[in-house]
Order: sequence, then structure tokens, then C-alpha cells
Amino acid sequence: MANLDAADAITPQAVQTVRVDLGARSYDIRIGRNVLETAGAEIAVVLPGARLAVIVDENVARLHLEAFGASLEKAGIDFTPITVPAGESTKCFSQFERLCDEVLNARLERNDAIVALGGGVVGDLTGFVASAVRRGMAFIQVPTSLLAQVDSSVGGKTGINSRHGKNLIGAFHQPALVLADTAILDTLTPRDFRAGYAEVAKYGLLGDADFFAWLETNWQGIFAGGQERDEAVARSCQAKADVVAADELESGRRALLNLGHTFGHALEGAVSYETERLVHGEGVSIGMMLAHEFSEKLGLIGADTVGRVERHLTDVGLPIRITDIPGQLPGVDVFMDLIAQDKKVSRGALTFVLTRGIGDAFVEKGVDPYLVSEFLKEKLNP
Amino acid sequence: MANLDAADAITPQAVQTVRVDLGARSYDIRIGRNVLETAGAEIAVVLPGARLAVIVDENVARLHLEAFGASLEKAGIDFTPITVPAGESTKCFSQFERLCDEVLNARLERNDAIVALGGGVVGDLTGFVASAVRRGMAFIQVPTSLLAQVDSSVGGKTGINSRHGKNLIGAFHQPALVLADTAILDTLTPRDFRAGYAEVAKYGLLGDADFFAWLETNWQGIFAGGQERDEAVARSCQAKADVVAADELESGRRALLNLGHTFGHALEGAVSYETERLVHGEGVSIGMMLAHEFSEKLGLIGADTVGRVERHLTDVGLPIRITDIPGQLPGVDVFMDLIAQDKKVSRGALTFVLTRGIGDAFVEKGVDPYLVSEFLKEKLNP
Repeated sequence: MANLDAADAITPQAVQTVRVDLGARSYDIRIGRNVLETAGAEIAVVLPGARLAVIVDENVARLHLEAFGASLEKAGIDFTPITVPAGESTKCFSQFERLCDEVLNARLERNDAIVALGGGVVGDLTGFVASAVRRGMAFIQVPTSLLAQVDSSVGGKTGINSRHGKNLIGAFHQPALVLADTAILDTLTPRDFRAGYAEVAKYGLLGDADFFAWLETNWQGIFAGGQERDEAVARSCQAKADVVAADELESGRRALLNLGHTFGHALEGAVSYETERLVHGEGVSIGMMLAHEFSEKLGLIGADTVGRVERHLTDVGLPIRITDIPGQLPGVDVFMDLIAQDKKVSRGALTFVLTRGIGDAFVEKGVDPYLVSEFLKEKLNP
Repeated sequence: MANLDAADAITPQAVQTVRVDLGARSYDIRIGRNVLETAGAEIAVVLPGARLAVIVDENVARLHLEAFGASLEKAGIDFTPITVPAGESTKCFSQFERLCDEVLNARLERNDAIVALGGGVVGDLTGFVASAVRRGMAFIQVPTSLLAQVDSSVGGKTGINSRHGKNLIGAFHQPALVLADTAILDTLTPRDFRAGYAEVAKYGLLGDADFFAWLETNWQGIFAGGQERDEAVARSCQAKADVVAADELESGRRALLNLGHTFGHALEGAVSYETERLVHGEGVSIGMMLAHEFSEKLGLIGADTVGRVERHLTDVGLPIRITDIPGQLPGVDVFMDLIAQDKKVSRGALTFVLTRGIGDAFVEKGVDPYLVSEFLKEKLNP
């Protein structure tokens, strides 16, 4: 921000708004560089008079809590920060219990609100806490990772992990406001940024061939933090908002958003969620690649389409093969078990998001487990 | 059932249906003697093909699980029973975690369902589990106490207790079906039956003077298990269904159902939920009496109305005074603290359900804490 004077620094420029249209539960996603600095004013408009509990992990607290708190104070908003350890293992029952207790300790009342300041872990956990305390309190998302800005902060899916799998316990609880500060993403490691980018690419692959083509041309600007980044976040949020508005509780179309996720979750489970080996977005990247290769195997798409996906994911530096994951992996039976225990199962048949081309994904509910198993064997032992 | 032959015994007679009208989340409450025996057939109609987890406390399991299980087997329904300890302390985080885990262990899928077979404790806890596993599974209530049949099983409020107070953690999660077998209530202790009756009387007091007058005349038939009992359960469920349909998430009118509950919850907290000293319905009975006396003190009703309430609650054997609770009670400051921490607080002002007469209760949001405190002092040291 060396070239901006103080007035510029606290005035977000070119803030874009994406509306998530859910009737009485509708809300805005506000996207732009430095929206964090006017967060207090934004929140005061949406929830006048509310006191806040701000749940934040230790890393994000170190980087961004001071700026966020200053913005709240400027708007006259009283708040209680509550920190949690960073990392996926924080999405657990004991943190859920502890945070419910801390929010009640802070004497928040029904008209107050709970803020998630952080990435997907903090957002998912905080949202579940907000859904449960007093049977539902207002909830604000301030996503600080690319993954959270384009995916997990939008749409109201909240939850924690169980020893049976990821996100198996939770609630649908929509936020009242999402504030996505794209300048914050400058503080991410390249690996975390790339992992979030997998979800951006997903929106192109599942339903918008033009967007995918635009990404193939503009991805470097997105990584560098130019106007392309805001554009990519806004288009991703719009894509998700459209799907969520059509199918809030995932009875149909919303399942499209799981492109790459059934395989991806199984991969995460296979490494016991060890993020040194694999983070969620990397699992999604490999999972998307597998979904395209499996679609090819089923005769739905040609090698040219698979090649285009492979090229773009490789260009941005994402892993694309199971064998890209460092260390030992379990056998195919463990993978099949992990897939079967995933939420996307209905009466024994496997549900996968498959595709007929770039931007033309669809939900297939009757996938034969034998075909999946044979396919995975090839990929595990290429 | 000595005078019924086998065919009669498995055919529920005069089953009444109360519809809870909530759009896509609408459901029926089926009320009558022996509906437990056709539970399997009823469930198979509403959720064809579903497998079940049946959560039940140890006492209810001993009395009713065999009959319920036989009915499920007859309908070809596969189920996994899961028992929990009896008592209010079961509504806790650790049981919540354990039950989520057990349901996943039973490999229930999205189209399967979770059944609460028991009283309010099991219903509230099970409903919260059903709301949370896979972000919401179908839920069936088979209430076995009068309290659960007329109150907690209807309307979708679920939850557990926190050390800060009762039901502070939970969800709104509507059941898909409620089966209220009024013959089961024959197995309740007189104390438990009376406690549930406090909620029946509440419906008259809060909004239906005719029903209260009917209760004054017919309460003995309700206690004895005659047709009056079915009638009282159905009218209570209808009253609750009407309020819930008008205000599912308790933003307004539904708060009327809390008549007697703000004082009642404080009393339960004051005895640390020791049910040897006070059960929920007894707290509600004393709380309703206090709400009428407080309304009298505020000049809203006369001594004649208070006397009528006192007479009826005394007739059925319910406690009506704080000093009816055995053992030592805390001072007024503890009571005020418990009231302030109750969910029914908004920006520091106290919310109470007050009344202008039998069947004419209303929600008052701006009650001066000082008046409450002075009133309670009199009642604690009469």
C-alpha cells in the first residue's frame, strides 16, 4: 500500500456485491481490496446494535485481528475475540463445545452475532456454533483464504469432522453478511493460494466454459493480485450463489458443487487429513482430474478435454495425480470404504459428479462401485 | 386391555390426527391408545425404505422397546437401538457427540431416519443429533411422557443443556412424524403425569379460556386414561401446532408458549436440575402461578383469576409456590442471574409472558428487572 495515502487506505475501492438470494435469509457478499478496513461500518448497517464474538485462529489473529478490531471500534461495535488453534483438527466436538460455552460466557444475546475471521476451518466451525447457540444466532463470515472466499463462506454449509469423515456433523446456517477482502490473500502462502484456486477452476469446469477459458488466459493476474483476482472471486461467488439459491439444502443441483470432492475427500481421509501431505484444495484438484479421467473411461468425454484440464491445473502448480501425494497411501479397499462413508451416498449406490465436457458437469447417482474400484486401482498403481 | 381380543389390541382405535402446517416441513401428529403397535406401518408410509436408529433411555427401553421393535419388524423396517441413561443430565455435549458417532457407526444414510422413543430429554437430544448428522436427517418422535406428547415432541425445538442454562445449545429441526400413544402414559408415575399436565393447563391459560374451563371439569378423566386424555392431548397439540405454524422460529407469537417458563427455568437452575426436588413441569406449574401473581401485582388481573389458577393446579396436585420446593434455595440475586441468562432476553430488558385473564396471555418485552427482583423477594420469603 506504499503508494496510497491514508484516506485511500481506509476506503475500499471498487467493492463488488454478489447477492445470495434466499428469501428472508438473503445476504450480500462484499468483495474488494481492503474491505476489512470498513468491516465495522458494513456490519453496523446489517446488524445495528449487535455485539460480536469474533472467532479467529491464532495465525489469522496475529496477521489481521488488530485491523479488524480497529474497524469494529471505529464503528462503535463491542466485541469479544476468541482464538482457536489453526488447522483442520480444530473442527472437532471439543472445540465446538468450548466455543458454545465461550459465546455464552461473553453474554451474547439473541440479537448479537458471531463472526468467523479466518479460513474454511474457522468458518465451518464458527458457523456450526452460530447455528447451535440459542438455536441460531446471526453469523458473519470474514474469509481470509481464497478457498473460504470463493467456496466455504458462501452458502451456509457449516460443520465439524467426525472420526467417520469430514463435515459429517453440522448445519445449514446462512451468514447475514460475507466480507471478502482480496488484499488479505497477499498474506497466503503460494501453496494455500493455489489450493483455493482449485475451487475457482471448479466453477468453470462444472458449469461455465467461458469462465474456464478466461481462467486459462488470466490466471497469472489472479495470482498476482490484480483486478483479475477480484473478478475471479466475484464470478466464483456468483456461480455458487446461483446454485445455492436454486437448491439451498442440496436436494439436487447443489450437488454439482461436489465436482472433484468425492475423490478429494477420500484422498484427504487416506492421509488422515495430514495437511503437510495434502490440503483440501489439492485433494479437490486431484479429485477433479480423477472425475474427468473417470468420465473419459465411461466414454463421456475425449482425451482432449482431459488434457485441457490437466494442462491448466498443472500450469498453476496444482497436483493432479494420486501419486503426486507424498508418502505411503492405503489400498483401494480403504479408498472405497472412505467413498462409501462420504455423505454423497444414497441407498448403497455411489453418487459422483461426472462431466460431458468443460462446463457441462452432471450428478450421476447410480455409479457402479466396481467400476470406481477398478478405476482407482489403475490410478493407485499406474 | 383385558376386554379386547388380539385383533383389537393391534388396531389403534379412534386415532386422531393433528397436522402441523409448515409448508414443505409439514407433518402429522397421530394420537391414540396403542398407536405404538402400528408404528412400523405408520413410519413406512411417511419414510418408505428408511432404516432407523432408535434412541431410547434405559427405562423406556425396558418398558416399550420390545413392542416398538416388534412393530418395526412387522413392517419390515431395519433398525439399530441406541440406549442412553435416563435423566436430564443426558442432554449434554458428551452424549450428543456419542450419539452422532453411533448413528454414523450404524451406517445410516441420508434417506434414513432417527427415532426418539422417550420423554422430553430423549426427544430434545435426539432431535439435535438428527439436525446435525449429515447436516440434517429425517427425525421421528415417539413421545412416551405426557410432557413430550403435548409439548416437546411438537414444533421442532431440539437441544441440549449448557452449564449456563437449559436448552441453550440446539437447533430448530422438525420431525417428519409424531406418534403419541396415550396408553403408554399409564406407565408413568403420578408425579410425572402431573408434571406433563402442567403444560396441558398452560394451553388453556395462554390462549383458550374454554379449554381451561373444560380442564377444570374433566381433569380426572385425563388422569384416569379415558377418552378425555386423547382429547386433551389432541387439543394441546393443535394449540401448539397453530402457534408453531404461525411463528416457527419464535420471532414473535411462539414466545407465548413460554408462559411460566422464564420463572420455571430459573427454578430448575436454582436446584441444579435435581429432579428429586423439581421436575420441569413442576417448575412450569410454579412459574405459571408466579406469572399470574406478577400480572396481578402489575394490575393486569384480579385476585379472582389468580385464585382460579391456584385452585386448578392445586386440585391436580401440582406445586404452586417457590416454597413448595423441598430443601434450601439460593437468594434473589442468583434467581435474577438465571433469568438474565435465559434465552428470553433481548438487549438487557427482560421478556416475560404476562396475562390479562384466563386464555389471554401476551409477551411483554420491556419488563423492569427491579420489579421482578422485588416480586421474587416476597415469594422467596413469604
